[in-house]
Amino acid sequence: MGRVTARRRVLRIREGVPSQRPDTLAAEEPMEIRVAGRPLTVTMRTPGHDFDLAVGFLVSEGVVRVSEDVAGIRYCAGATADGSNTFNVVDVALAPGVAPPDPSLERNFYTTSSCGLCGKASLDAVRTTTTWPLGEDSLRIDLETLTTLPDRLRAAQRVFDSTGGLHAAGLFTADGQLTCLREDVGRHNAVDKVIGDALRADRLPLQDSVLMVSGRASFELVQKAVMAGIPALVAVSAPSSLAVDLAADSGLTLIGFLRGTSMNIYTGAERVQPNLVPAGTGN
Amino acid sequence: MGRVTARRRVLRIREGVPSQRPDTLAAEEPMEIRVAGRPLTVTMRTPGHDFDLAVGFLVSEGVVRVSEDVAGIRYCAGATADGSNTFNVVDVALAPGVAPPDPSLERNFYTTSSCGLCGKASLDAVRTTTTWPLGEDSLRIDLETLTTLPDRLRAAQRVFDSTGGLHAAGLFTADGQLTCLREDVGRHNAVDKVIGDALRADRLPLQDSVLMVSGRASFELVQKAVMAGIPALVAVSAPSSLAVDLAADSGLTLIGFLRGTSMNIYTGAERVQPNLVPAGTGN
Repeated sequence: MGRVTARRRVLRIREGVPSQRPDTLAAEEPMEIRVAGRPLTVTMRTPGHDFDLAVGFLVSEGVVRVSEDVAGIRYCAGATADGSNTFNVVDVALAPGVAPPDPSLERNFYTTSSCGLCGKASLDAVRTTTTWPLGEDSLRIDLETLTTLPDRLRAAQRVFDSTGGLHAAGLFTADGQLTCLREDVGRHNAVDKVIGDALRADRLPLQDSVLMVSGRASFELVQKAVMAGIPALVAVSAPSSLAVDLAADSGLTLIGFLRGTSMNIYTGAERVQPNLVPAGTGN
Repeated sequence: MGRVTARRRVLRIREGVPSQRPDTLAAEEPMEIRVAGRPLTVTMRTPGHDFDLAVGFLVSEGVVRVSEDVAGIRYCAGATADGSNTFNVVDVALAPGVAPPDPSLERNFYTTSSCGLCGKASLDAVRTTTTWPLGEDSLRIDLETLTTLPDRLRAAQRVFDSTGGLHAAGLFTADGQLTCLREDVGRHNAVDKVIGDALRADRLPLQDSVLMVSGRASFELVQKAVMAGIPALVAVSAPSSLAVDLAADSGLTLIGFLRGTSMNIYTGAERVQPNLVPAGTGN
């Protein structure tokens, strides 16, 4: 775990006064994910929890659903000239009967073969791949509990404290207990690490969990929550239009701008207690 | 440009009081970039300036260097069942003699065929692809001018004002004039749009420009600056370790945590005036 942060020299200017000193930065290194020896993707990530990242990514892409789908995970070594292991290539072996990823996945989850690529096609792609439909009768969470999540997430961000520059994803129970936190230079990686950890502990679908992320909520993050069976996604900042559309399409509760006692509930308000939807209207 | 934002219903909670209202969100749609009809990548982006995004991406990847390298750009239409154009697929035709992207690019710029994938290999990949070496005698910028950039960038962010949720990239002259600003759900897209705009106006390499980005500075953003010949990259927040390493390797000035009159100069302090490097030390 020594590679989570790195030290570099910096010239600090504070009110015009310069000083030279070492600075602690969030580490960033490329990691290649392979399936059965075949390269699938490369992501720039903060080292650490690499096996979780690899299998979490495969959950997001619909390749694996439960821990039994994974036969093994290892660092790939020996192809460099000096035979050293960079710990930046992770190979996932699938269990017999589990289909390897479609080659078109190598370009992108949302890729279609036609010129008809659009938001709707992206929603359809997730819908046809979803393993765990989000039941309406699942999780309920109190408004008051929701307002405590940002501080709990922030309090657990150790690497952020030293570098000031990392995204975080945290998994919470309905009563606000943090069960898993991951920090990464890429928000999507932090989410994949949380989901991969859960898969390896045999806890998918995460139907009793709330996923909270620093920053914004994109289509990609909603997709990852849906693919892991997580019924509620909470973000500190704004969602995009397509994030809201996918949340509505999937039955996910999507909350943004959660700050202090304020928040915006974009979809799935029925999971939030007390029921705040004005009588006679839906949300 | 009507698709830059979108309206969705939201349940707002302010100090426990709910209200239902329409909300303005940053639009997010997939866009596929093709080269000579062949799909290269799909990016989730905010619609608008799509041709700039496509060619800017190709500059970042080392496929095109100057406007003459591009023979034409068009929206690809007609492959949907109803023959409609989604304006989400952009096809770039290259001029005769310009090599199409390496098929391995379809997975990732940093991909190598060996297990030796690491930060150093990523630096090497950029070094061997760089078109415009960053000369030490190029751009100089005043410390005082630098401190004005965040407010100037923020003041120009129109979509952020309405949605509260967009990244921005701005190109500035050495005396602090904003020459191009782009906003996007993806920071890398905002940078590609700025660079693509410059390529199409025949202004590459951008050796007299400073690029400023909202948020953090990743390896990928430093790579994009280097590939466009931009000598200075300024970020509101933290850089990663590999971003600093690539900046040092490329001779780029990298500044982070630019807030008020404070900043961290990680590399290339010689371009900042007055010279603040303590006597007898380098940076």
